[in-house]
Amino acid sequence: MEVSELGEFGLIDRLTTDIKHVNSSTLKGVGDDGAVLQFPPDTDVLVTTDMLLEGVHFDLTYVPLKHLGYKSAVVNFSDIYAMNGHPRQITVSLGVSSRFTVEHLEALYSGIRLACEIYGIDLIGGDTCASRQGLVISIACIGDAPKGRAVYRDGAKDTDLICVSGDLGAAYMGLQLLEREKVASAGKKDFQPAFQGKEYLVERQLKPEARRDVIDALAKADILPTAMIDISDGLSSELMHICKQSHTGCRVYEERIPIDYQTAVMAEELNMNLVTAALNGGEDYELLFTVPLHAHEKIEKIPGVKVIGHITKEDLGCALVTRDGSEMELKAQGWNPLAKKE
Amino acid sequence: MEVSELGEFGLIDRLTTDIKHVNSSTLKGVGDDGAVLQFPPDTDVLVTTDMLLEGVHFDLTYVPLKHLGYKSAVVNFSDIYAMNGHPRQITVSLGVSSRFTVEHLEALYSGIRLACEIYGIDLIGGDTCASRQGLVISIACIGDAPKGRAVYRDGAKDTDLICVSGDLGAAYMGLQLLEREKVASAGKKDFQPAFQGKEYLVERQLKPEARRDVIDALAKADILPTAMIDISDGLSSELMHICKQSHTGCRVYEERIPIDYQTAVMAEELNMNLVTAALNGGEDYELLFTVPLHAHEKIEKIPGVKVIGHITKEDLGCALVTRDGSEMELKAQGWNPLAKKE
Repeated sequence: MEVSELGEFGLIDRLTTDIKHVNSSTLKGVGDDGAVLQFPPDTDVLVTTDMLLEGVHFDLTYVPLKHLGYKSAVVNFSDIYAMNGHPRQITVSLGVSSRFTVEHLEALYSGIRLACEIYGIDLIGGDTCASRQGLVISIACIGDAPKGRAVYRDGAKDTDLICVSGDLGAAYMGLQLLEREKVASAGKKDFQPAFQGKEYLVERQLKPEARRDVIDALAKADILPTAMIDISDGLSSELMHICKQSHTGCRVYEERIPIDYQTAVMAEELNMNLVTAALNGGEDYELLFTVPLHAHEKIEKIPGVKVIGHITKEDLGCALVTRDGSEMELKAQGWNPLAKKE
Repeated sequence: MEVSELGEFGLIDRLTTDIKHVNSSTLKGVGDDGAVLQFPPDTDVLVTTDMLLEGVHFDLTYVPLKHLGYKSAVVNFSDIYAMNGHPRQITVSLGVSSRFTVEHLEALYSGIRLACEIYGIDLIGGDTCASRQGLVISIACIGDAPKGRAVYRDGAKDTDLICVSGDLGAAYMGLQLLEREKVASAGKKDFQPAFQGKEYLVERQLKPEARRDVIDALAKADILPTAMIDISDGLSSELMHICKQSHTGCRVYEERIPIDYQTAVMAEELNMNLVTAALNGGEDYELLFTVPLHAHEKIEKIPGVKVIGHITKEDLGCALVTRDGSEMELKAQGWNPLAKKE
């Protein structure tokens, strides 16, 4: 069905039908000039937003719309977790060109709604309009944290431990794999992409998760990180944000960077430097954070979190300590979407 | 200067330099994974968002970037006022193709920042990325209202008075004028557009204002509207939203619809039906609201607000009472951006 048959309001009705709210802070969602929220006293309200553009952030040749919807929502949740908060609401704005049907948008929304269901988020509004530029997705996310518990990027201190959740570089390797198979499939009918043994990489690229579990585990262990950020542009780039804003340096140990087996195999296959991929590959959506040295024992007990180095005084700079003990200056080679040209 | 020379973070630094916050609810703005806000107890937090796409919502042939920035922000403020709240913060997400230079984006931002300055809003974050085609602007706005004072679309009651601020149809006529002059200018050097005597129309289209004054006047007069909406898609369409959600009908009197002299002259010149333009022309960003009958005297005293009709029982339907006393069914012919095709 063509979108124009329904019009803006008909489409919104259809996409947002049966939406239920699970958060007590959501008073009024879709259907007015704005949504209305009510937070308990002594709450910090967190706000973040992300824009995803077709041809820049995603390629619909190999990204299913449902996955795209899921990922678009999750990357926003990840930003709120990275503030040590819990996401509660999202607004979804879509620009849609005429090649998208109502069914396409329902697939996209089903992914957004699935992410909301899994993470306990309310879809409270948005905007839907025609686009000349393919698909445009802009999501804003609202979250909360108990007053004074939000964690910034600028609180890291000399001797703090640098911790990271999960493993790194897999999403980037998944992207390389998907791009390779896209090229291989060109013009071929009944092409079967070679994903066997690399499912984890594809999943990390197409269906990332946000680390609510880590935020909950930190709270349970009564650890308040001194600084935190989520890894969307690569470990190197994010670490340098923390160090720049905290006026510190850092040392990260190559041998401690968590890397999955499939990531290593794929790097080998593509003749890529594995550490470079883990340092600079983006879209892992893992949490990078620093904790005081005395939290060492508690941190070690949290599953899926690894200490990869420590914060130093600013004049020592930011460096990777390689396996042979030498130091390599860290550079933010992270994915820079604005360096790309039309 | 090319945007790629600065990169995403350099660009954001440049555009957001010297940003000061004026609202006590803004704790932390640009520069982290998310912004942090703190509202006083017993506050309703309001959230709205709008997306503007080049070639659909604006034409850079005749829309200066500074004006575009101003308008992009103001249309969001308008949504918060339409909830009977006050806007406090915005996030700005931009998709930018390579034909835009840093100076272009500075012009756009100068308009956004001017709007923020005039309305007392804090710019607290956003996202900036490359676009393959044209300019994409997505703004989310956060506001507040004292608990229980937010006004929805669904509270209108039989016999309520229907009120509107300002005058209608001018922004639409401004658009017609700008489009006409664009066509006339094609291929001509040193073309001078014929805006004399029509400055108001051009201003209404290019630099709309949001009606904070009306919200403040209503509060001062201790009038809580029963329903409210801002007129972005045309009076007809917005009235029908209120009636549909409130389960009522309405009668609006043609002779009471406020129309500026310049709008009337332009309609005559273009051989357009003036009432149709006032009913269905969008982008006026005036407030449409209903108040109980007993507020009549108080409402009459608010400058720039006019009573244009009244709410009826649902089964009477929605109609315009023309000058000769006959009734014409209202239809939502408002601007439907999704009916447009690529």
